[in-house]
Amino acid sequence: MSMIVNRRDLDFLMYEMFDLDRLLTTERYGDYDREVVTAVLDTAQAIAEDKYLPCAAELDANEPTFDGKDVHIMPEVKAALEAYAEAGFFSASFDEAVGGMQMPFMVSSALGGIFTCANMGIASYAFLTQANAGMLAALGTASQKDMFLGPMLAGRWFGTMCLSEPQAGSSLSDIRTKAVADGDGRYLISGTKMWISGGDQNISENIIHMVLARIPGGPPGVKGLSLFIVPKYRVNEDGTLGADNNIALAGLNHKMGHRGTTNCLLNFGESGDCHGTLIGEPHRGLSYMFHMMNEARTGVGYGAVMSGLAGYLYSLDYARHRPQGRHPHEKDPVTPQVMIIEHADVKRMLMAQKAYVEGGLSLVTYCAGLIDAQAVTDDPAEQGRLGLLLDILTPIAKSWPSEYCLEANKHAIQILGGYGYTREYPVERFYRDNRLNHIHEGTHAIHGIDLLGRKVRMREGAALEALEREVRQTIDQAREVAGLSGYARELGSAFDMLRDTAGRVAQTKNVNLMLANATAYLDAFGHVVVAWLWLQQAQAALKGLAGNGGEQDFYNGKLAACQYFFRYELPTVDSRFALVASLDDTCLMASPEQFIGQ
Amino acid sequence: MSMIVNRRDLDFLMYEMFDLDRLLTTERYGDYDREVVTAVLDTAQAIAEDKYLPCAAELDANEPTFDGKDVHIMPEVKAALEAYAEAGFFSASFDEAVGGMQMPFMVSSALGGIFTCANMGIASYAFLTQANAGMLAALGTASQKDMFLGPMLAGRWFGTMCLSEPQAGSSLSDIRTKAVADGDGRYLISGTKMWISGGDQNISENIIHMVLARIPGGPPGVKGLSLFIVPKYRVNEDGTLGADNNIALAGLNHKMGHRGTTNCLLNFGESGDCHGTLIGEPHRGLSYMFHMMNEARTGVGYGAVMSGLAGYLYSLDYARHRPQGRHPHEKDPVTPQVMIIEHADVKRMLMAQKAYVEGGLSLVTYCAGLIDAQAVTDDPAEQGRLGLLLDILTPIAKSWPSEYCLEANKHAIQILGGYGYTREYPVERFYRDNRLNHIHEGTHAIHGIDLLGRKVRMREGAALEALEREVRQTIDQAREVAGLSGYARELGSAFDMLRDTAGRVAQTKNVNLMLANATAYLDAFGHVVVAWLWLQQAQAALKGLAGNGGEQDFYNGKLAACQYFFRYELPTVDSRFALVASLDDTCLMASPEQFIGQ
Repeated sequence: MSMIVNRRDLDFLMYEMFDLDRLLTTERYGDYDREVVTAVLDTAQAIAEDKYLPCAAELDANEPTFDGKDVHIMPEVKAALEAYAEAGFFSASFDEAVGGMQMPFMVSSALGGIFTCANMGIASYAFLTQANAGMLAALGTASQKDMFLGPMLAGRWFGTMCLSEPQAGSSLSDIRTKAVADGDGRYLISGTKMWISGGDQNISENIIHMVLARIPGGPPGVKGLSLFIVPKYRVNEDGTLGADNNIALAGLNHKMGHRGTTNCLLNFGESGDCHGTLIGEPHRGLSYMFHMMNEARTGVGYGAVMSGLAGYLYSLDYARHRPQGRHPHEKDPVTPQVMIIEHADVKRMLMAQKAYVEGGLSLVTYCAGLIDAQAVTDDPAEQGRLGLLLDILTPIAKSWPSEYCLEANKHAIQILGGYGYTREYPVERFYRDNRLNHIHEGTHAIHGIDLLGRKVRMREGAALEALEREVRQTIDQAREVAGLSGYARELGSAFDMLRDTAGRVAQTKNVNLMLANATAYLDAFGHVVVAWLWLQQAQAALKGLAGNGGEQDFYNGKLAACQYFFRYELPTVDSRFALVASLDDTCLMASPEQFIGQ
Repeated sequence: MSMIVNRRDLDFLMYEMFDLDRLLTTERYGDYDREVVTAVLDTAQAIAEDKYLPCAAELDANEPTFDGKDVHIMPEVKAALEAYAEAGFFSASFDEAVGGMQMPFMVSSALGGIFTCANMGIASYAFLTQANAGMLAALGTASQKDMFLGPMLAGRWFGTMCLSEPQAGSSLSDIRTKAVADGDGRYLISGTKMWISGGDQNISENIIHMVLARIPGGPPGVKGLSLFIVPKYRVNEDGTLGADNNIALAGLNHKMGHRGTTNCLLNFGESGDCHGTLIGEPHRGLSYMFHMMNEARTGVGYGAVMSGLAGYLYSLDYARHRPQGRHPHEKDPVTPQVMIIEHADVKRMLMAQKAYVEGGLSLVTYCAGLIDAQAVTDDPAEQGRLGLLLDILTPIAKSWPSEYCLEANKHAIQILGGYGYTREYPVERFYRDNRLNHIHEGTHAIHGIDLLGRKVRMREGAALEALEREVRQTIDQAREVAGLSGYARELGSAFDMLRDTAGRVAQTKNVNLMLANATAYLDAFGHVVVAWLWLQQAQAALKGLAGNGGEQDFYNGKLAACQYFFRYELPTVDSRFALVASLDDTCLMASPEQFIGQ
């Protein structure tokens, strides 16, 4: 079995759950069929197993260093990214019109996931570049695209996103970096950016920063932010590299995990000579950022699922081969030890990991499918409906895997016991890597507020209604199926609570009180969504069992995980929804002095 | 505010909750009064802040190394332990008769906690030595005590516990290390021991290993294990050090956390010349180990609480001083940013930490008080009652803080955001350190099985009854108090579920099924116990508020944390008890092949 991907599960999601076949019949994806998709994923898996996986532990133990002048990164990183570039994967999800492979997002996400699972530290350089290039492709002028997009999609130049500053992390409203027009159509950028992943490195020929900054005289707050392209080296008209653009690496941050990717404090324009080019119109920078936010945030969720998957696969393999202890009924100490997968609590921890990881994977794959569906429909009503679903599910797709696939990693360590707690085994690394995902691309708290304060109320509840229609459809189908009708009923009650809680909370005029328990709401909402997707997985598994009579283990495993989710997980939402609905103010009313009494 | 201890909370627990005053009137502890206790803790805090805390981050970043011959450890470690020894603290909890300070366990635990909170890596060397010396004091012959105890209580020789082997971690039944009598009253020890904390170091003059091994011809399994004293250097009759005792360090394990303490793979008697001395009688080694188990396991819980406390104090201080963002009702971006402690979700994460950490501290302090009470009573019935309470609470005291104070550390990282995820700040270290506690001194699963399979049933439920009497007494008192009667009712219902669930589970004859969800039972049981202790804290806080009218913040903070626990935490037990009571077999019945379908 592979340690970085369960291809059978990917196929199940793409073909048996989310009908990739139908998508591949559309004009946009006409170049793809099952065979091509399989070949693409085969290539990805081969590169990832050959170039990414073998150096993952070493890269974690030997993070990039900065000697005050240059950044040093293990050479395996560059070699791996060259293989990735050679396969054309930097351009996987881009349109043919700009030289891309025009892959369905469902497929390019799966492809990316394989690399993430193998080596998060290397994979991140490519994903940041793709996110940056995605904004360029969507928002850049023809000449901006001419200049930057080609080298990025070829993997020769990498990209970053520069939003945060030391005094402005979650609060982008407080960004201070300045951009002053120099009269020649350029802007002079000055300021300090913090937490810039890939902000400096010695891998690519150039680094293209996407920078949020303020044009003096604009409105305060987020309405005065503009977006700029700021390259490390200036680019001449003919595409060759010009002078150094006055961006100084002030230092590297040293993280608990994600140690393979540089994370930088950057000073722009210390000597007053850092050139940037405006993207789109002035003062619209944040709205441009939000343009790409759903994909970026779903991408974080995808990454969290992949850390979870890496731990799940490793601990499953370990549990099958590690003898230790005997069954509770076995009192004779001279009988052989059993493999630990025989112990009920190890099975519980594996089943929990399966339910979290495969549940999370179904969630992010469903979201990817919504993005694909948007790309192939011209119907404005359908576009609107898909957009609403994506809007309401994005906070879940980002946050739920962050929380529960981290929990999965905790279980993976536990299954390996003392060994799992050492750096000689990879599971503690996955646990360290995964802890980041609650923090970046909007903290957990921010997504709670986004969900309860905005998404469930937007357009008079239209997004929540769009989701409810989907959920009720699954419930209506499952209600008629032997073995699933109980789950259908339980999911229906849980959704009632979810909706009623949003309604109860909306009745207060006190916005601080309304949002005081938004994180608990986010958490419980996620459980309902994933229960819904598990019920769909069970439906597909029953169909699979009826269809060919083979692969009993695979399909029965899906049914078991669905059962686990409805018995062990979904019942926990009741107390959380009740808490949120009660508008409890215990925490909100606590004064700073009460915490330790001084 | 101190970053390593909340002295006000220690005083609250010792004097306002658990009546240390009364204990100090007993003959055994006649040398102590409040003033002496305060002076002792002052000294501990001063040494910990001066010698332990300043090098904690550096020790984590520069773990001990082994060059194939010698172990190298930062010199600050030795200096810190010398200061600890000079204060006499190695002997804190030992009887005056053996040269100890004869401190109440409640006080010596608090003292130890201060050092743990400051620098877990250093503190562990002392605690391992004290645990080893405790067994010697209880079980050793006069000549064994003469030879070993004095240097250990003076901190000149350190001690270890050698139980695990590579093939025998949780399953001590499978230990293979041999001890062959040489006819001179000595035993020749041979075998490999794994995970030995402090197993080698360059700090103390000698290392005294306490080793579980098998005398050939004994019964198989745990009933054939004997316990031996095995020194690194042999000890001459006059107490001077003799020859090297043929114990080879085969390698150091590299852990995710706890990086300051060496953790070793040791080969005993590779050349056939490793001498050991039997403790007590042959084949009774494991029962001797269990003799000290309650204290050792409560000690693990105490350590988990201290990692939690370290993160709580740090993140609280940070939240008070980090400006970021504005209240939800504030729409004007030019108003100043507020300190993040003003945000509802930061308050929630601080309150959760407070509830977990101070709740956990009350639990382990209560257990320490039970041990103290045992030491001063001659009444066999009272001894029995105290023993039963300790027996049933030990799995909780070990496991509940491991789970929930790790969760506290997760929140501490989140409060610091990106900064919290870097090694430039200490909170990620606490999170890494704390993850060990589910694993050592009996895994989480083992404590669940111990609780549900043994402790709740022992002596026809006598331990559970003893606990219930205590809980009902608190409920009866709280029922009459305005503001607490609701909690009293809820705690009563929760305890009913706890007891009824144990009864339901006991009805099956299938022991594998009976124990299949023991971990969930352990978890929910812990929440009920901590809710009970929070209700007691609230009672004491109301008394404090009525008594002097001062310290409003401290006491109101206790009431707020109690309210948090009853509103946010206790309601979660219902679904867990229901699951256990249903004898759910979802995980138990899953086959190894179903997890990924191959």
